[in-house]
Amino acid sequence: MAYRAPVEDVSFLLKSCTSLPRLMEEGIVDLSFDLVDSVLEEAGKFAASEVAPLDPVSDKEGCTLKDGAVATPTGVRAAYAAWAAAGWPSVAAEERFGGQHLPVALTSALTEFWNSACPSFGICGVLTMGAVEALTAHGAKALQDTYLPNLVAGTWTGTMNLTEPQAGSDLSALRARAEPKGDGTYRIFGTKIFITYGEHDVAENIVHLVLARLPGAPAGTRGISLFLVPKFLVNADGSLGARNDAVCTGIEHKLGLHGSPTCTMTFGDKGEGAVGWLIGEENRGLNCMFTMMNNARLAVGVQGVAIAERATQRAIAFAKERRQGKAAGYQGEGMAPIVAHPDVQRTLLTMRAETLAARAICLMTADALDRYHRLPDPAARAAALAEASLLTPVAKAFSTDIGIEVASMGVQVHGGMGYIEETGAAQHLRDARIFAIYEGTNGIQAIDLVTRKIGQNGGDVVEALIADCRTVAADVTAVNAVEFGHMGVRLGEAVDAFATATRKMLDWLGEDQGKALAGATPYLRLFARAAGGAYLAKAALAAHRARTEGESDPRLAARIALARFFAENLATEARGLCESVIGGAGAVLEAEAVLALD
Amino acid sequence: MAYRAPVEDVSFLLKSCTSLPRLMEEGIVDLSFDLVDSVLEEAGKFAASEVAPLDPVSDKEGCTLKDGAVATPTGVRAAYAAWAAAGWPSVAAEERFGGQHLPVALTSALTEFWNSACPSFGICGVLTMGAVEALTAHGAKALQDTYLPNLVAGTWTGTMNLTEPQAGSDLSALRARAEPKGDGTYRIFGTKIFITYGEHDVAENIVHLVLARLPGAPAGTRGISLFLVPKFLVNADGSLGARNDAVCTGIEHKLGLHGSPTCTMTFGDKGEGAVGWLIGEENRGLNCMFTMMNNARLAVGVQGVAIAERATQRAIAFAKERRQGKAAGYQGEGMAPIVAHPDVQRTLLTMRAETLAARAICLMTADALDRYHRLPDPAARAAALAEASLLTPVAKAFSTDIGIEVASMGVQVHGGMGYIEETGAAQHLRDARIFAIYEGTNGIQAIDLVTRKIGQNGGDVVEALIADCRTVAADVTAVNAVEFGHMGVRLGEAVDAFATATRKMLDWLGEDQGKALAGATPYLRLFARAAGGAYLAKAALAAHRARTEGESDPRLAARIALARFFAENLATEARGLCESVIGGAGAVLEAEAVLALD
Repeated sequence: MAYRAPVEDVSFLLKSCTSLPRLMEEGIVDLSFDLVDSVLEEAGKFAASEVAPLDPVSDKEGCTLKDGAVATPTGVRAAYAAWAAAGWPSVAAEERFGGQHLPVALTSALTEFWNSACPSFGICGVLTMGAVEALTAHGAKALQDTYLPNLVAGTWTGTMNLTEPQAGSDLSALRARAEPKGDGTYRIFGTKIFITYGEHDVAENIVHLVLARLPGAPAGTRGISLFLVPKFLVNADGSLGARNDAVCTGIEHKLGLHGSPTCTMTFGDKGEGAVGWLIGEENRGLNCMFTMMNNARLAVGVQGVAIAERATQRAIAFAKERRQGKAAGYQGEGMAPIVAHPDVQRTLLTMRAETLAARAICLMTADALDRYHRLPDPAARAAALAEASLLTPVAKAFSTDIGIEVASMGVQVHGGMGYIEETGAAQHLRDARIFAIYEGTNGIQAIDLVTRKIGQNGGDVVEALIADCRTVAADVTAVNAVEFGHMGVRLGEAVDAFATATRKMLDWLGEDQGKALAGATPYLRLFARAAGGAYLAKAALAAHRARTEGESDPRLAARIALARFFAENLATEARGLCESVIGGAGAVLEAEAVLALD
Repeated sequence: MAYRAPVEDVSFLLKSCTSLPRLMEEGIVDLSFDLVDSVLEEAGKFAASEVAPLDPVSDKEGCTLKDGAVATPTGVRAAYAAWAAAGWPSVAAEERFGGQHLPVALTSALTEFWNSACPSFGICGVLTMGAVEALTAHGAKALQDTYLPNLVAGTWTGTMNLTEPQAGSDLSALRARAEPKGDGTYRIFGTKIFITYGEHDVAENIVHLVLARLPGAPAGTRGISLFLVPKFLVNADGSLGARNDAVCTGIEHKLGLHGSPTCTMTFGDKGEGAVGWLIGEENRGLNCMFTMMNNARLAVGVQGVAIAERATQRAIAFAKERRQGKAAGYQGEGMAPIVAHPDVQRTLLTMRAETLAARAICLMTADALDRYHRLPDPAARAAALAEASLLTPVAKAFSTDIGIEVASMGVQVHGGMGYIEETGAAQHLRDARIFAIYEGTNGIQAIDLVTRKIGQNGGDVVEALIADCRTVAADVTAVNAVEFGHMGVRLGEAVDAFATATRKMLDWLGEDQGKALAGATPYLRLFARAAGGAYLAKAALAAHRARTEGESDPRLAARIALARFFAENLATEARGLCESVIGGAGAVLEAEAVLALD
């Protein structure tokens, strides 16, 4: 099925809901919306024409490992080369390393497009972008000069080597070790699992960022350092030298993302150790990795949006073609297209509205990062960072949760055909399932939100967000236009529930953390219901203004209709979620007696 | 992973919540609970030891088609033979055809066990049982005598041939045709798709029940007749004769259920037509098929329960083994098992509670069927049938929805390992995904519930159920024991929401059916939240009584804890669902403007 990048939706959100207009006006970002739109258009075209065709092929062929070399599916190498040649890997990086330094809000949208078109292709760029960020923030100048230009150009790719069999969510348990050679290099030993694009044939070199322990390092997470370990060592003149002892010794047979090789990486198995260089300070590796992970978490959230968008497009297209039964509103000949059935409409609207809400949450997170990176005032930057930190776990977990849910709805809309692999709908569900797991499971995101994020500045950051949401709800109520339905009331109720649950969570953090942890997952969902609804409503208000100013683009009315649908049908979950957070923790903490019986 | 059949849960529900004790006492059912328990035990053992080992093998190998013959995965033939030899296919059928005529509540539980152990194996028996029911209810005596003993013994298996490419949910569009030969036989022509076990190697003969049109039959669903078309014709002495022209011409490549061959069946392609016999009256085939389908719908609901149970067992076992991080309540050495983390506990309790609620709904549906089949009083039988009709779409749709959700949570609990196929968790998600689609998509179940079921007797049937739920909530509130938490209050709120939405639905049915259709899916979920919560609470009340009478089995306390968890954490969805039903339909009916843009 053809993919069409949601250029208009992104562009509208950027213009109406982000800081980008202000940052442009103040000359902080040197861009125009004409340029932004043309970047979006070009990326959308490339994604549709060059990347999307890889998606079914990648799924079917998967990757193969032979003698330590991974072959990617047919067409991926060529597409990657064209993608790099077109300059797409360089959009985010700083100019001094050859990057275009576009705002995160814009580059996130591009990440969505690649991952909608083919997520097993898109994830490679996400990892490389993460490596660029970590090296930019923490790498020594010599390392930056050697590695960044090629990573930014996409000639080389990056990886994150964290997980070991005994150390998944809990990195304190990791055992890989690094020995200093005294010449500025280290020798790395150990085995890492689940390394995305740990080995492949799409680029000339692979730059592994590897967590390992130095001799005598403290136990736990305070004894972990970060190392750069290239697949091929780099000669002084920049050419590639000897093969490093960093070898792919296995690839996984996964539910989905078949085109993305998930590698077991063995370092130093030949005896001398893999040659590596320290990034940042000794024993501060987790800090460096978190730079990479926070951005990667947003990017994974964007992957959730991406798969939801693709699944939605596919389902709507199918529902317009497939004819079954009679439908009250359908005037045509014969059986009605199933898109005319109210129950199918509910499903499709849910898919669209969830996708839009998740996209808005991701874009708002990206926008906060842009203000953090670019505003001149340190206080404003700190506030923006706190906002981004607050939103990141929500962007990651909510977007990937709805990625799965929307992909599953997409299968359902296809009926029996949805279960047949050749249809393509099932692949989205299989692909989407990992996003809720990697870069920190969604449970860990919820715990991060509750234990580290809402308590920032004594709760001021989340309270400010709640106040913003409340203002939006009030503004919607004030509009009093028939097409807004009960959007304002429902949104107001959702925000009230969000506020109530937040206060309870903040109370519990001091004295009763078990209850806060027990309610973390429904709390995150509640957060997204209120904030997502508010962002959609904000865009709907902008659409309403445009309509009152005489614009007649039907997409403006559709935007209002979707925000209304979200408020009246999805944000309605909020009160029940609040009850589960506040009144449900007791039952969770009695779990032991139940689970002991199994 | 080892499977352990939930014998205790089923036995407790049968004793404390169904009519079975009364039916036994009154001599209507000639069974004792000792016998019931030993049947459950034996079935559980067989499922665990003989059927469960097939599950990963079936998934991996799948079925192959060669020259019209389907080979099932290694071990399936032998297991099927042992299963039939042990008498398991005959549990439901009437004695006169060699069956054991056990109550549906009991046979449903057995269906769950086979499908937990290996759903691609279990579905074969479900289809055969459906064919037995249809033939028993509608077949001429000669057909019954020829086919039923072998179907009941499991020597032969049955299929349902409904779907054609253009006729999925809407059977009025089907085109297969039947020509009467004047000798009591018919010749069948046409192609059917998605025929489960349409061809296989596990039994000697296959008895296809095929929907087709007679010459001059009215258009639409009133012109469809049902035919019996055997794979091999049966000689007068009962031996197998000529091969009939009913041929498998393709099998599907599916997301899951790989061990179950999904066949394209071509009838009469050699020219003369496949030989068939009419079942029931001409043009009344859909009626006959509905006998089969209603029971099959309950059985598919049971498949949802089955997969949820298996996924839950697997996740709990993993969570007890896998160690990551520290947990407040964990006193042991080193990292805590993840089962000690409150967020994981919430997930596992959700899995368990949803599974129990769905099982209870299915058992209550089965119990109503038992009263319909067995009570002497015609009025009581009619009331029981109305109750079963009301509950069937809820049993089918809710159980299969939570089957998917619980299987997905199971993947999540496994973290990265959950995405690796060898772990086994992902297979449950892939397998579960079809249950929400086949035997009428869950959307169609919701529409059936709203347009045909809640309106029975002017709404009296559903109102009686609501009154029962309300009584349970009041009884729980009256108990006032600390371990019940806020179960009574939350359940009462859920029942209120159910009642409010039901009244609105009944109003809309007369005048505003579009709104009823638009709200059908959240209404069904709301129904299940209230009724499922009430059934769990009823069992919890029975457990409480047993405890006050001095019983100390820890499973009694666990039952109360799970009912409480359900009420406080899942039934809390009810009010929001009610709001979506009542206040959300307007936004759905404005869908056209949104969906036109895609």
